[in-house]
Amino acid sequence: MPANPARITAVDTYDIRFPTSRELDGSDAMNPDPDYSAAYLVLRTDAGDGLEGHGFVFTIGRGNDVQVAAIEALRPHLLGRVVDSLCADPGSLNRDLIGDSQLRWLGPEKGVMHMAIGAVVNAVWDLAAKREGKPLWQLLAHAEPEWLVSQVDFRYIADALTPDQALELLRQGRQGAAEREAVLLEGGIPGYTTSPGWLGYSDEKLTRLAQQAVADGFTQIKLKVGADLEDDIRRLRAARAAVGPGIRVAIDANQRWNVDEAVEWTQALAEFEPYWIEEPTSPDDILGHAAIRKAVAPVKVATGEHVQNRIVFKQLLQAGAIDVLQIDAARVGGVNENLAILLLAAHFGVPVCPHAGGVGLCELVQHLSMFDFVALSGTTQDRVIEYVDHLHEHFVTPVVISRGHYAAPTAPGFSAQMLPESIAEYSYPDGTFWVADRTT
Amino acid sequence: MPANPARITAVDTYDIRFPTSRELDGSDAMNPDPDYSAAYLVLRTDAGDGLEGHGFVFTIGRGNDVQVAAIEALRPHLLGRVVDSLCADPGSLNRDLIGDSQLRWLGPEKGVMHMAIGAVVNAVWDLAAKREGKPLWQLLAHAEPEWLVSQVDFRYIADALTPDQALELLRQGRQGAAEREAVLLEGGIPGYTTSPGWLGYSDEKLTRLAQQAVADGFTQIKLKVGADLEDDIRRLRAARAAVGPGIRVAIDANQRWNVDEAVEWTQALAEFEPYWIEEPTSPDDILGHAAIRKAVAPVKVATGEHVQNRIVFKQLLQAGAIDVLQIDAARVGGVNENLAILLLAAHFGVPVCPHAGGVGLCELVQHLSMFDFVALSGTTQDRVIEYVDHLHEHFVTPVVISRGHYAAPTAPGFSAQMLPESIAEYSYPDGTFWVADRTT
Repeated sequence: MPANPARITAVDTYDIRFPTSRELDGSDAMNPDPDYSAAYLVLRTDAGDGLEGHGFVFTIGRGNDVQVAAIEALRPHLLGRVVDSLCADPGSLNRDLIGDSQLRWLGPEKGVMHMAIGAVVNAVWDLAAKREGKPLWQLLAHAEPEWLVSQVDFRYIADALTPDQALELLRQGRQGAAEREAVLLEGGIPGYTTSPGWLGYSDEKLTRLAQQAVADGFTQIKLKVGADLEDDIRRLRAARAAVGPGIRVAIDANQRWNVDEAVEWTQALAEFEPYWIEEPTSPDDILGHAAIRKAVAPVKVATGEHVQNRIVFKQLLQAGAIDVLQIDAARVGGVNENLAILLLAAHFGVPVCPHAGGVGLCELVQHLSMFDFVALSGTTQDRVIEYVDHLHEHFVTPVVISRGHYAAPTAPGFSAQMLPESIAEYSYPDGTFWVADRTT
Repeated sequence: MPANPARITAVDTYDIRFPTSRELDGSDAMNPDPDYSAAYLVLRTDAGDGLEGHGFVFTIGRGNDVQVAAIEALRPHLLGRVVDSLCADPGSLNRDLIGDSQLRWLGPEKGVMHMAIGAVVNAVWDLAAKREGKPLWQLLAHAEPEWLVSQVDFRYIADALTPDQALELLRQGRQGAAEREAVLLEGGIPGYTTSPGWLGYSDEKLTRLAQQAVADGFTQIKLKVGADLEDDIRRLRAARAAVGPGIRVAIDANQRWNVDEAVEWTQALAEFEPYWIEEPTSPDDILGHAAIRKAVAPVKVATGEHVQNRIVFKQLLQAGAIDVLQIDAARVGGVNENLAILLLAAHFGVPVCPHAGGVGLCELVQHLSMFDFVALSGTTQDRVIEYVDHLHEHFVTPVVISRGHYAAPTAPGFSAQMLPESIAEYSYPDGTFWVADRTT
């Protein structure tokens, strides 16, 4: 190590809120009026290379300030860290943060404090990938299996997946990885779109957007359900008519139901052949999901965007409770915990179809799916990344969707960086948008 | 309603921290140096009766400020509420807070935001009981079963317990309630003590405190374990020698182990006949607890102080994962959710032995156990409340322990109120203790 190695010098935070509730974008059975927001942070260093690490938690409005406060509570763990060693081993930070016994009391490993840890850890991965000059998916796909295993915390999951088993999965994943990387760079990997299906949209808008989705090359769309059964029947019929029989139509209840309701409601919609029912009940209810899955087959059961950590995912897999595992890039403890979850899914043979949308979730999670395709599961069969066409314009390297596929990012980093002018405009409550909003 | 009914006029918050880490009080395998703290709030009204509602979240130091910020995020839900209707139906507030869709994103129903909801809801119950002129246990024990059922949120638990089943349990609980109330007022209900068993204590101190516990009338003590097996064997042998065969000795690993380790370690301590193994692994691991319970019987399995909500408790009961259910007064969404959990426990026939200690947890949770004894389970068989003799001096109506029993509080309220001088001294960072600490 040099005498004066570069260190982390600042953890700057921002409370960023977009007024999305005014258009009913993002409205569903549990979230009638979200204001898509980000509790955002920038890691700065004294390396003199101009590189920063960006990360964030996605929230839907109120409480974004609490999430920012949680990120700020982690600042002492970051300041003064040597950048080289931090970026060479983000897992060391992950372990320190998860293991801070006083902060652990506020979870453990769940909710506001855990999401804050995820944002900080993700910012380190963004910085590490920028320094490496690679997009994050490529950094991960090119990494040695032994190193990837060292990045995973096996506490509480070793009864389902041992480090040796994980290593074996990653070694198998290397076979043919170069060919798959070429395929990925050529054509991307499949997405599906939720844009037609928000509850607040009219049937006419739903039909138009569903037809547009098919014309755009998507082979799957998704509809929000769960507020009113008659409405859902009408909307699902309209969607099926709009897209025809060859397109998958998933439905998403956003946790609206009890177990019995989930079964009855899903069965009542079965004639329209929904591909999966997403979040039929509480994300905490492992046994409930198992019961629902048994009752609604062949409709598949999907969940994950609100699943708090690898321990709950482990049990969903152990209990045979899900057909589709939906990781989220900003819910769990960052890339390290998502590596654990991807490995668990591969071990149990369950496809991963990430949750995305919100603010920047598409930008982040594409990297994890691309790593999964290139160097772990090795397939895109039954694997699609959610796509929603909101708010991408605020990012420096927004996702690129082409013929229903996510194109592989080539810019170094985790695609997490927001434009400075967007941060200035939508910072709450003192950004230019919010100031103007109050005075008009 | 009168023309100008009394309303909530203020939600004042305090970040209170005690420097407990300096004495190793509270040290265990996962929490080597806790600074027992409270994110504390006071509800004020314009009723002119001098009554306030007090509530808090217990934390162990860092992050207490984040917890305070979460409580403050709930302020808009409280200000201006009519005191009469709020206190007549705390469940209405509980539903509003749990149902705030934007804040819900930060859980849902777990971690920092959920504990903040619990603190606010508990403060309303404190105010309601003061206005009623009764200690909270008595308010609950005297309440109509129908009203108690109306206070419970059955969402996500109705597959295990319906409102009708809950009503029937509460009606049965009324039989003989007056006699049990007299028994309670006469002799209290049993406690057990963790004071001898902190990991940081010497064997000599452990032995002395264990003997003292028996002399004080306790029939159960508890030891922290999980850091080092040889140490645990030595400490458990010393404890068993100190108390003799007739006293129950529980052990507590504070989530230290994976499933396999939990089984092996507990079996290695079995010769000392531990009564229960508490928190053998992650509180999120329902299936893990079930596997451990099967393997370590007849040692009982206990957990709950970190169990995030009624949905996880439901599954622990459905899966037959626990012998002992440990509610905590300040982890879940307040009295309303703890009513749901007590009802679930009664329905499954599992005894409730609350977690306590920390700051004020004994003061709060005794009310829930006393309600359970008088008007729900109707028995103290295998039911004990944890007792730790720390920090009670900071409360206006501290717990009273006599011959190993918690005496029934008679002062109106939830026993949640801290002395103003304690708040002034230990407020962080500007209380007199912390200011003096920095300047010496």
